[in-house]
Amino acid sequence: MHILVTNDDGVQAPGLLNLAQEMRKLGRVTVLAPDHNWSASGHVKTMERPLRVRETTLADGSAAFMSDGAPSDCVALALLGLVDPADIVISGINPNANIGHDVTYSGTVTAAMEAVIDGVKGIAVSLHSPEGFKGQLDYSTAALVARRVAEKVMSDGLPEDVVLNVNVPYLKENELKGTMITRQGLRVYRDALDQRMDPRGKPYYWIGGEAPTAVDEPGTDFGALTAGYVSITPLQLDLTNYKAMDVLKKWKF
Amino acid sequence: MHILVTNDDGVQAPGLLNLAQEMRKLGRVTVLAPDHNWSASGHVKTMERPLRVRETTLADGSAAFMSDGAPSDCVALALLGLVDPADIVISGINPNANIGHDVTYSGTVTAAMEAVIDGVKGIAVSLHSPEGFKGQLDYSTAALVARRVAEKVMSDGLPEDVVLNVNVPYLKENELKGTMITRQGLRVYRDALDQRMDPRGKPYYWIGGEAPTAVDEPGTDFGALTAGYVSITPLQLDLTNYKAMDVLKKWKF
Repeated sequence: MHILVTNDDGVQAPGLLNLAQEMRKLGRVTVLAPDHNWSASGHVKTMERPLRVRETTLADGSAAFMSDGAPSDCVALALLGLVDPADIVISGINPNANIGHDVTYSGTVTAAMEAVIDGVKGIAVSLHSPEGFKGQLDYSTAALVARRVAEKVMSDGLPEDVVLNVNVPYLKENELKGTMITRQGLRVYRDALDQRMDPRGKPYYWIGGEAPTAVDEPGTDFGALTAGYVSITPLQLDLTNYKAMDVLKKWKF
Repeated sequence: MHILVTNDDGVQAPGLLNLAQEMRKLGRVTVLAPDHNWSASGHVKTMERPLRVRETTLADGSAAFMSDGAPSDCVALALLGLVDPADIVISGINPNANIGHDVTYSGTVTAAMEAVIDGVKGIAVSLHSPEGFKGQLDYSTAALVARRVAEKVMSDGLPEDVVLNVNVPYLKENELKGTMITRQGLRVYRDALDQRMDPRGKPYYWIGGEAPTAVDEPGTDFGALTAGYVSITPLQLDLTNYKAMDVLKKWKF
């Protein structure tokens, strides 16, 4: 089995190292990840400029590739033949949960989407770390969960057009309550515009505001996490709202 | 009615000018668009750097704002209070169709998504221009269609959580066959890796390949366009694959 590991936090992020080390227990691992952080960068296909790929070394001394492209570019580069064909693409481990509306912004998730578009199984893994956590996060439980999910995907396959979005509570392995298959929940952003003046008296703007609050509903990604369960949400690339089609079909122009 | 107009091709793109001019027939228009092209940039929330907003003038002499943020940033800035509250956000007109898997990459579509996340109606408008077309595109039919759709949305409303993805054939208005409410179709990308050497003998990579071919299926966005119909696809922000949930629930860990 050949596993492609990528992320959106950059190739030197500790979440990637933990993921790569754990995935090596399943098969051959190639790391190709961005050379800098692309959080909240969305689904990118870089076509206006060429991309560079360079060799680097992870903190454990293992070889890796890094590119100046986005996470989804890294996946495209790898699957277009830059490296040997991959059986599965796994992206992460993101230091924060990717739940609710996060999934369309998330570089972690869109990297896994890119794999599925290219016909390869794609899994995104994120850690639901405590808000405002300072210091070194412990990715060991999330990495273990990632390996188990990848094993399951390789043995049982996945329904067509499905991207797995895995979020893991910040717990020790023996504290996990189990695994829930969930739907995408709601996350409420309370963004605020923060206008400031530069030293020359000209305004600039931060998109700021409070941390987003998720709605703790049973059956959702966030509901599972708060109850201590690993959340696995099958996402799809068909965004059609079929129910709304019936409503709109009554429109007369 | 206050209408926010944006795009992903940059504030000076002719498709935006046509759209803004047509929307002025419906109400007050504010233009806030990126200062450069963001095609295939995905859904972005810029949080690592502050954003600048500057005044500019469109080719018809009207005032507009431009930002160094992504299309979705422009929408967020506007809806967070940089300009008066908008009743509707309309993004485009993109010079190429946004169909099939394009919708997750498209800055045009993700700008409209951002509006819906922020609780405002969002419409993306794209022109299905002929492949390889050189010269000045005629946006007049697409702009007219955009106005009609916006009028309808303002009078009849939209189901919750729906982003309208409108694609218009490259036809004169009297050649249009009508309007179809469609589902997102399939577009097959045949990307290829194009490795080249720089003058210093180091490799770089273009994501290249043939133009994508869409699958011409009845009921889809592309099926409508090829039959000469305006395609209106209601998209949603819930990406959950509910059918796959049942399959995955049988998994044992």
